Amino acid sequence: MKFTINKDEFIKGLLNVTKIVQPKNVNPILTTVRMILDNSGLNLTGSNGDLAITQTIPLFRGDKEIIRDVRQGGVLVNAKIISDIARKIDGNEITFELIDDSVAKIANEKTCFKLNSIRVEEYQDIDFSKTGSAIKFKRVDYINAINEVAFAAAIKDTRPTLTAINFLGENNTLTLAATDGARLASKKMDLEITNRFNANIPSKALVESTKSLTDEEFITLYISDKKVLIELKDCEIVSRLISGEYPSIRNIIPKTFYYYLEVNANELINAMDRISLLSNEQEKVVKITMTETKVEVSSSSQQVGSAVETLNVFKYQGERLEISFNSDFVTNAIRSLKSEDVLISFIGEMKPFTVTNKNDSNTIQVITPVRTY
Amino acid sequence: MKFTINKDEFIKGLLNVTKIVQPKNVNPILTTVRMILDNSGLNLTGSNGDLAITQTIPLFRGDKEIIRDVRQGGVLVNAKIISDIARKIDGNEITFELIDDSVAKIANEKTCFKLNSIRVEEYQDIDFSKTGSAIKFKRVDYINAINEVAFAAAIKDTRPTLTAINFLGENNTLTLAATDGARLASKKMDLEITNRFNANIPSKALVESTKSLTDEEFITLYISDKKVLIELKDCEIVSRLISGEYPSIRNIIPKTFYYYLEVNANELINAMDRISLLSNEQEKVVKITMTETKVEVSSSSQQVGSAVETLNVFKYQGERLEISFNSDFVTNAIRSLKSEDVLISFIGEMKPFTVTNKNDSNTIQVITPVRTY
Repeated sequence: MKFTINKDEFIKGLLNVTKIVQPKNVNPILTTVRMILDNSGLNLTGSNGDLAITQTIPLFRGDKEIIRDVRQGGVLVNAKIISDIARKIDGNEITFELIDDSVAKIANEKTCFKLNSIRVEEYQDIDFSKTGSAIKFKRVDYINAINEVAFAAAIKDTRPTLTAINFLGENNTLTLAATDGARLASKKMDLEITNRFNANIPSKALVESTKSLTDEEFITLYISDKKVLIELKDCEIVSRLISGEYPSIRNIIPKTFYYYLEVNANELINAMDRISLLSNEQEKVVKITMTETKVEVSSSSQQVGSAVETLNVFKYQGERLEISFNSDFVTNAIRSLKSEDVLISFIGEMKPFTVTNKNDSNTIQVITPVRTY
Repeated sequence: MKFTINKDEFIKGLLNVTKIVQPKNVNPILTTVRMILDNSGLNLTGSNGDLAITQTIPLFRGDKEIIRDVRQGGVLVNAKIISDIARKIDGNEITFELIDDSVAKIANEKTCFKLNSIRVEEYQDIDFSKTGSAIKFKRVDYINAINEVAFAAAIKDTRPTLTAINFLGENNTLTLAATDGARLASKKMDLEITNRFNANIPSKALVESTKSLTDEEFITLYISDKKVLIELKDCEIVSRLISGEYPSIRNIIPKTFYYYLEVNANELINAMDRISLLSNEQEKVVKITMTETKVEVSSSSQQVGSAVETLNVFKYQGERLEISFNSDFVTNAIRSLKSEDVLISFIGEMKPFTVTNKNDSNTIQVITPVRTY
């Protein structure tokens, strides 16, 4: 195996596939990047065990030669070190040569690295096949949908299914849902769905895919029983699915409300940002007190003190209501809607409430209040 | 106590004096900022127990009123929270009012914070007197001197004296020295010295003082038996000294050499940066092999591989020599000199070597080599 490659293309490719590789992974194979050179170009693959990204750098882009002096072959090398070398070596080109089964040479005129390498056959099997239900998104719809729900997924995997975004496809409607148990985000989209599916796709894989976007017009997801393959313009991402039944979101989203508050999104976010300064750092609980003539955001802590702010712009319908909640949850929910005004609908003091854009009911954010004493 | 203050001035003052305050300090008094308002303005003081910064915001700057509606007094309030409130509250002015002995109110038209506060008398005594030997630096000389030595001081306080920069003043010469046991930086300056002194000033206090500089022409240090006071334009910094005898630097700096290498500073730094990619992350050991016709920087590790780079620009005088060292130490030493070329002078393979600017012997960087096998 031997090739001379345009340095910038090599760096970009390595960065894209190795950003998920964990340099301290206990499995040494998973600290490497797989490089396979053949007629179609240089294929790079990185993985963290759950998730893999693959990309092929072509021999030519139009008339421009990207890779020359090609001798085909494959090898595994340490992902972090090959990336660092590519970034730090001088010049516009890098020459890579496999000297024998265990040493790769990366060199220019004045610097020579000899890197321990591993035989390409020792890499894990990764299934990059495009099988199962195919869903095709427009770029902007895909990014918006992921951003509107991903933040509500659980970070810790005490309940692994909750670290996923649930994709439920039926009757030409795709419903995405994410919940960490204290809040839920759901998003409906009209899309062509040929076969019903219900899959828990790790939120991390989906967020990663939005970071790997270049200038694609479409993104296609292939959802099969065990895995999802996300096809982007320059690369493909494959992730295992998370097994287990996802909570039924129909039972979680409230339907009847008795109190409605319409507010300016920024005014409420800024007020909560100030008022939560005096609440517990982890919880950031604030209280909102509403009547038809006055809406106040407040917080108080025995240790630190108290704070209160009145809103200027609001429309409230209902009896007097006081409700406390984690202000970060409400801020994230409001931000995801990207709307100037938001509608918050309540059932009562201790019942979950929804945050929506009043002109679009496809995205619903549900938040459970916090009990205060 | 009551006042209305220009918000930007208040934020700047709070930021300057509270940047050293530790929000989680076990002593609750040390999590506060002391505010004292009198005829001269609003005096703010913050401390971490070892180090204190004080600054007075005047009532007027020229014709511009900075503080108005003044009712004199003093109080302690949580440093982080008052700073956050000042940054996040709307408007150009903030009104602060002490309601009783334990509550301070900070408000504008729509937002009102009531902050628990502590009586000003409970603050620790801090001696801001200007006593002892006074040393007056020009601004640029002060910054350069601190930067040329501070990086060599120890971070960990297993040997507390080594976390200081030693200031030795005698015969109108000030000698600064810092060493962590594996390297040493020393700097001589011609300055008016009236009384001999030998003080261990915490490196952190000196580095902090360079960050608090605004546009002063001069910086004055007052060194007494137990403390140093650093007088800047807008604020004063006071720090305890570290007791204990500092190592004699005369015995550490070598005087006779047998090998001399002159190199381009950037070429050597860049070569070490690349070659150290393959050495241990903590140690970053590289080897330099010198003859009169060739200079090579190399490294090798059983686990990762090997790397070698030849230098283009060098002048070497002496027999063939191979020496290994921590490349970060040499990089820091070279950078501190801010010189295009540097002179590295060796005694032998296992003896400390010096890094200097060949046209200026006032700054000497000494580095102990590393034994490799």
